[in-house]
Amino acid sequence: MPELLFQKFDEKIELTDEEKKLSCSFFVPKKLRKRQYLLQEGDVCKYIAFIEKGLLRSYTVDDKGNEHITQFAFEGWWISDQYSFLTGEPSEYNIEAMEDCELLLLTKQTEEGMLEKIPKLERFFRLLLQSNLIATQKRLVSSLSQSAEERYNEFISACPTTLPRRIPQHMLASYLGVTPETISRIRKQMSSKSIK
Amino acid sequence: MPELLFQKFDEKIELTDEEKKLSCSFFVPKKLRKRQYLLQEGDVCKYIAFIEKGLLRSYTVDDKGNEHITQFAFEGWWISDQYSFLTGEPSEYNIEAMEDCELLLLTKQTEEGMLEKIPKLERFFRLLLQSNLIATQKRLVSSLSQSAEERYNEFISACPTTLPRRIPQHMLASYLGVTPETISRIRKQMSSKSIK
Repeated sequence: MPELLFQKFDEKIELTDEEKKLSCSFFVPKKLRKRQYLLQEGDVCKYIAFIEKGLLRSYTVDDKGNEHITQFAFEGWWISDQYSFLTGEPSEYNIEAMEDCELLLLTKQTEEGMLEKIPKLERFFRLLLQSNLIATQKRLVSSLSQSAEERYNEFISACPTTLPRRIPQHMLASYLGVTPETISRIRKQMSSKSIK
Repeated sequence: MPELLFQKFDEKIELTDEEKKLSCSFFVPKKLRKRQYLLQEGDVCKYIAFIEKGLLRSYTVDDKGNEHITQFAFEGWWISDQYSFLTGEPSEYNIEAMEDCELLLLTKQTEEGMLEKIPKLERFFRLLLQSNLIATQKRLVSSLSQSAEERYNEFISACPTTLPRRIPQHMLASYLGVTPETISRIRKQMSSKSIK
């Protein structure tokens, strides 16, 4: 039984044991090894993935060949390209496993089937999207208005304590829209402050 | 009868005439004159607003006193600060009418009541949040990876043709995270290209 998934359901809605059991039948388990892709640019995003174990990143590559990381997602989170999943258009994103991962996948068809059989999950996904939208809006405002230091501090204070250790410095820099040297400088400044 | 609201419902879900009529009873109509506020920074956001007529903007002010516009919203769109609305925490945003506006408001209580009476609307709001999330993610990627010209062109091609005329140049600059001089330069370049 996917205990972490059930725990996430319980945080937002009330499902009976029967409904939880039924929900499982719509998910397909999938293992990815580190550096394998769930989605590659140009392909249609066929899945919404719930992460039971591991860490993934989604990123896009601009015309000059620079990577821009749009999301890190780890245990208990969901990852997908909503636009491609919804429209069937080819995706502009890549979703790559940064560690060995265990995922539970929904396709468009199984998601619709599940929502039809368990309408309470409409509410779950509405609330999930709401949280996701709030976080994305916050990041957008940060990218428009905050300094590199402020963005770094906001990321560190909002994420679980073990996460920064799992993310290579150059990827965190890409996520925050700064250079790796900037992250290095901020970290040095912070450690010298904490020593004083 | 709020025809535009019903039209928006029809685009995403199927409601009976009875359900549409019932939904109306949860909304409170509100008129705002140009420059009046629906929400001011530091207050709790009490409303989700559907816009029947007019144009609003939401913006935040950074520590240096610079405004950053996060959203323009016009007829047929919704505007709110989801985070403050959801958590009851004071908002960091201002929502101001840029023209005389006619709104339909939901409070947290009336939204919950409406979703309880008309559960199909869970789906409507889920799909609405999904579209909003996709647009916000797209803007985030643009802000991290695109030039001022690319962002301007993307905005112009995605929005209704009359909208740019309704938005003052300095506000569009704030929304795109560039200076008003940059917008001016891009517009000149584009008009000289179209003459040639």
